[in-house]
Amino acid sequence: MTGKLVYTVDLRESCMLYFPSPEEKLTYPEAIEAVETTFAEHCMGRVQMPPKIYVTLEKGDFRTMPAYLPASGIAGVKVVNVHPQNRAAGLPSVIALTIILDVDTGVPKAILNATALTDIRTGAAGAVATMHLAQSDARTLGLVGSGRQAMAQMKAITAVREIDEVLVWSRDIARAEMFAADNTDQNCRAAPLEEVCGSEIICTTTPSQAPLVKNEWIRPGAHINAIGADAPGKQELDPELLRRSRIFVDDYEQATHSGEINHPISEGVYDPAELAGTLGEVVCGKKRRENMDDITIFDSTGLAIQDLAVGAIVMKKGGGMELPFL
Amino acid sequence: MTGKLVYTVDLRESCMLYFPSPEEKLTYPEAIEAVETTFAEHCMGRVQMPPKIYVTLEKGDFRTMPAYLPASGIAGVKVVNVHPQNRAAGLPSVIALTIILDVDTGVPKAILNATALTDIRTGAAGAVATMHLAQSDARTLGLVGSGRQAMAQMKAITAVREIDEVLVWSRDIARAEMFAADNTDQNCRAAPLEEVCGSEIICTTTPSQAPLVKNEWIRPGAHINAIGADAPGKQELDPELLRRSRIFVDDYEQATHSGEINHPISEGVYDPAELAGTLGEVVCGKKRRENMDDITIFDSTGLAIQDLAVGAIVMKKGGGMELPFL
Repeated sequence: MTGKLVYTVDLRESCMLYFPSPEEKLTYPEAIEAVETTFAEHCMGRVQMPPKIYVTLEKGDFRTMPAYLPASGIAGVKVVNVHPQNRAAGLPSVIALTIILDVDTGVPKAILNATALTDIRTGAAGAVATMHLAQSDARTLGLVGSGRQAMAQMKAITAVREIDEVLVWSRDIARAEMFAADNTDQNCRAAPLEEVCGSEIICTTTPSQAPLVKNEWIRPGAHINAIGADAPGKQELDPELLRRSRIFVDDYEQATHSGEINHPISEGVYDPAELAGTLGEVVCGKKRRENMDDITIFDSTGLAIQDLAVGAIVMKKGGGMELPFL
Repeated sequence: MTGKLVYTVDLRESCMLYFPSPEEKLTYPEAIEAVETTFAEHCMGRVQMPPKIYVTLEKGDFRTMPAYLPASGIAGVKVVNVHPQNRAAGLPSVIALTIILDVDTGVPKAILNATALTDIRTGAAGAVATMHLAQSDARTLGLVGSGRQAMAQMKAITAVREIDEVLVWSRDIARAEMFAADNTDQNCRAAPLEEVCGSEIICTTTPSQAPLVKNEWIRPGAHINAIGADAPGKQELDPELLRRSRIFVDDYEQATHSGEINHPISEGVYDPAELAGTLGEVVCGKKRRENMDDITIFDSTGLAIQDLAVGAIVMKKGGGMELPFL
């Protein structure tokens, strides 16, 4: 935890900017530092972030995520959809746009294509959790799922931890093998699910609606970033594993509604009173891994303040297409 | 009530469009017809519209308004601020942007500068209410407030009713006189508040936080569009006038939270059980003015579905700047 804000934005320029590829402007270390600082702000109650709102469409849904981050002088809204059938049409299943508003006047200052930024800010949160919660000597990374977010978790975590080997699993073994072939520089190889789950750090990034990861596969002391479950009904982890672990959420309200724990809570097999804390509390040093053998889980749903944190970096770096507005 | 949808959108084109001045693409009659049809959809429960979300900033706030209008094949989000001090800086106090999403894929299809569209769709709702609720021989229009929304109400109402004379009042008499001078073609003149309130149709469009319009000034049979109150704490009408009137809201949840009735309800001086119905019910013919002497009030807070209704017209008409996105 750095204790300082990395970027403070002055949005008082005159015209609206459009950034079609803002991800080209930021590195994982920058994103991780900004997201870490923002989780500290969240812990200290210095953000405004109403719960994300879901609208259901025939083939998917979209979520609207407004927030205000006073310490960074940035406010805005991300709009992001989930359309699982998009892949068949050659489109990403998750597509996002962020609007940045001038805090003093409400004037829209920028529109960001936030599709890749969403991957990065989610990866960055995984890295923050890993940095603070994984055992200090953890050197193996297991990826359950081999899509865009698996890639983001790998890139972010290898930016904060030295990793000797990355194991990857996918329901479609060809996809896992392709992922491994693309990442030989990370010493990545495809492996069976059980072997992947034996890693010291594990990231689950699938859209599963039923537990994939069995309790008995997870070694004592492991750290898990549970990323995939971000809507009611989704879950990736065995409820027994949840009861055996110290679970940290990004945000209580969002996680109990739509995170990994949402289904076990609604089924009565997990008591939210058992939650160990929030990632913000971990960043602020209020909560931590307590024993070497603890299994720690970061239950990520994705917060609007993470989007603003990376948006602030983009704004600070400047550029963008100028659009007429007022 | 036309019973048909005016515009059905096919958003399957390939790139994101930006409309800096979409208001140039639509007329009041088009907007009024689309908004009327959308209120009918609302009445029939055929829309998705979560309550608008407020985020508070130091000098104002912003509201995020997602919705889905299946009958028009359109989904999206409006982001709109209210910064009363903007006027001093030469900026509108209300500035808005609407994102239109492809329903089938979630891909953002267009971004609309919705500042003037917001005026128009609010004016259009006032016209729909006036068309259905005002006495058929009402020919005088009183405007309480002389800003952008007073202009929109006048333009919209004169598109649906023949008006002989428009009276306008402002706290700043010079502004009312300027408004009148700009609208001599509508036989408009500035007048004292009491005289304005003696009109047969009255539109209140001020940001007042205390009642301006006294009960005794309102004639039996009058119709009032109460537009200004759109956030908790705002009110323009005497609570006694509310109790004496048949009040129609745009949306129960939004109006009781932030409409003209929000403050009287929270003070216990108005019982929401007394509400006469919604504008959608009026459009569908389920609710109406019952007696010649009824005072009818339309309590408008502004709905996301109104924004989509006018957005659909813009999309249908085409044009816009092409922006790279995916």
